[in-house]
Amino acid sequence: MAVYTQISDDELIAFLATYDIGDLVSYAGIAEGVENSNFLLRTTTGTFILTLYEKRVDANDLPFFIGLMDHLARHGLSCPTPVVDRDGVALRALAGRPAAIVTFLDGVWPRRITPPHCRELGGALADLHLAGADFTMQRPNNLSLSGWSPLLTASGLAADQVYHGLYNLLSDELRHLARHWPADLPVGVIHADLFQDNVFFLGDKISGVIDFYFACTDFLAYDLAICLNAWCFESDGSLNVTKSRALINAYQKRRPLTPAERAALPVLARGAALRFLLTRLYDWLNHPEGAFVKPKDPLEYLARLRVHQRITSTAGYGA
Amino acid sequence: MAVYTQISDDELIAFLATYDIGDLVSYAGIAEGVENSNFLLRTTTGTFILTLYEKRVDANDLPFFIGLMDHLARHGLSCPTPVVDRDGVALRALAGRPAAIVTFLDGVWPRRITPPHCRELGGALADLHLAGADFTMQRPNNLSLSGWSPLLTASGLAADQVYHGLYNLLSDELRHLARHWPADLPVGVIHADLFQDNVFFLGDKISGVIDFYFACTDFLAYDLAICLNAWCFESDGSLNVTKSRALINAYQKRRPLTPAERAALPVLARGAALRFLLTRLYDWLNHPEGAFVKPKDPLEYLARLRVHQRITSTAGYGA
Repeated sequence: MAVYTQISDDELIAFLATYDIGDLVSYAGIAEGVENSNFLLRTTTGTFILTLYEKRVDANDLPFFIGLMDHLARHGLSCPTPVVDRDGVALRALAGRPAAIVTFLDGVWPRRITPPHCRELGGALADLHLAGADFTMQRPNNLSLSGWSPLLTASGLAADQVYHGLYNLLSDELRHLARHWPADLPVGVIHADLFQDNVFFLGDKISGVIDFYFACTDFLAYDLAICLNAWCFESDGSLNVTKSRALINAYQKRRPLTPAERAALPVLARGAALRFLLTRLYDWLNHPEGAFVKPKDPLEYLARLRVHQRITSTAGYGA
Repeated sequence: MAVYTQISDDELIAFLATYDIGDLVSYAGIAEGVENSNFLLRTTTGTFILTLYEKRVDANDLPFFIGLMDHLARHGLSCPTPVVDRDGVALRALAGRPAAIVTFLDGVWPRRITPPHCRELGGALADLHLAGADFTMQRPNNLSLSGWSPLLTASGLAADQVYHGLYNLLSDELRHLARHWPADLPVGVIHADLFQDNVFFLGDKISGVIDFYFACTDFLAYDLAICLNAWCFESDGSLNVTKSRALINAYQKRRPLTPAERAALPVLARGAALRFLLTRLYDWLNHPEGAFVKPKDPLEYLARLRVHQRITSTAGYGA
């Protein structure tokens, strides 16, 4: 539920007057996304999203995010395209916040994931990696291996309030991952948060990918590992191998994995499970009492982690 | 901030299949309104609002609200028009809630009110009363005189935590209003909550009126008294007579007030100030700690009440 900053009609109309996108017809705050304030704008020429970037986003990262969406859109990916003002500037300020207007994408995200969704996703993820291949800006992934230990320390022994023995279990997993994390896989720009609410479908085809605010430079195959976690598990915590096979095979049709990437996939998937387990655990332990946004259950990712721990090759994912 | 009930793409697509409004293109929860869950729908034929009615709305009142919007729209008022399904039914159920689709209105509500806004509002309010004249359904106003005493009792002496002596002050005011409340003024359907966020403008003209979920059968002039409170005061609590004159005179151009209505306007305005003071006071004292929706300051309406207490005729409002 996210409209943290209110804007007035006067300031919005004055702001839009510096763009060539017509006159304001309506606007409404959107109750999706938890990081920024998002408004759906309708003008006499079309529909747009206006985002005001809130404190949880580092303003220094915004040129990377805006530049990436612009690059990917120019390379044929269906994603929000930054709209520039009459001076050619996309990253602006409004109501005391960094602000940008992007194009609106049609489509709805699937609440109930099926194998065909996963097949579509695999192709779109490969397209994203290929389209990003010549994007020259870099942003380190501060939620990869080096970022997990401080996150676990921040939760500390309070982790055991959520699940008995969780702190030791996660410490052991961290040590394992530190020893086995790959060092030399193909690197590029990854989405890093390609959950189902960030992938729009029209009918059974993907119409667009949104929310690039965790995008960074990291192993391409780690993005696939995140999608395995986000798309291929059932609500009882079991891996659906039909879905993971569809995802990986569709990805490989457009960008075949190298032997090293295939070998590393189980450990990357463990890392991805740990990453979401740790951030959810932190939010679970630190959300304000009575806050409107309900934190997500960290233990869903403990179940996923345990599945990946028992897998030793991509065959375990049916691929 | 209001999306209390989530809906899935599957159930929404199945729901829309029973209407003749095209295929779903996108939908997003809207972060406005505090009573119900609202979604902005785009289909291949247009833009709509889907409302799921939450517990604070009495389901028995919904036929009145839906019927009223339909009636007013048919009589030329620009307001959300209920959309019927293929069986001709507007009030449906979705995700375990009563639900209705209405047309989307272009326009933005004015954050900074000027006298021309008040002039436009006066005309629109009279239009609403005239269009509603032959609406046959009735709904008592449970937030009028007989409803105020229970509200004050519910807040009780805790009122004095908000402002020293408030409970006695409000008890005295209630006694005064009970003695002087008019008994025989023109009655009809009133909006009863025509605050600025419920009135849309395109440029300097009203493009529509929304949110009929407090509408009821009561003195028409009481609606004008509510608008006096909601639109004609400055943030320092002072009455802006230019605004109140513009409001009342524009109203009278289309529906002249009777002598009895003119005489009763100051007491009706006191009642309207007390009504919003009491509901805000109750919400102020009873909102959950840390809740996302910040309650509105009840004392804004104490200042308005005191202004009305010193006014003895419509001349005090410049009209």
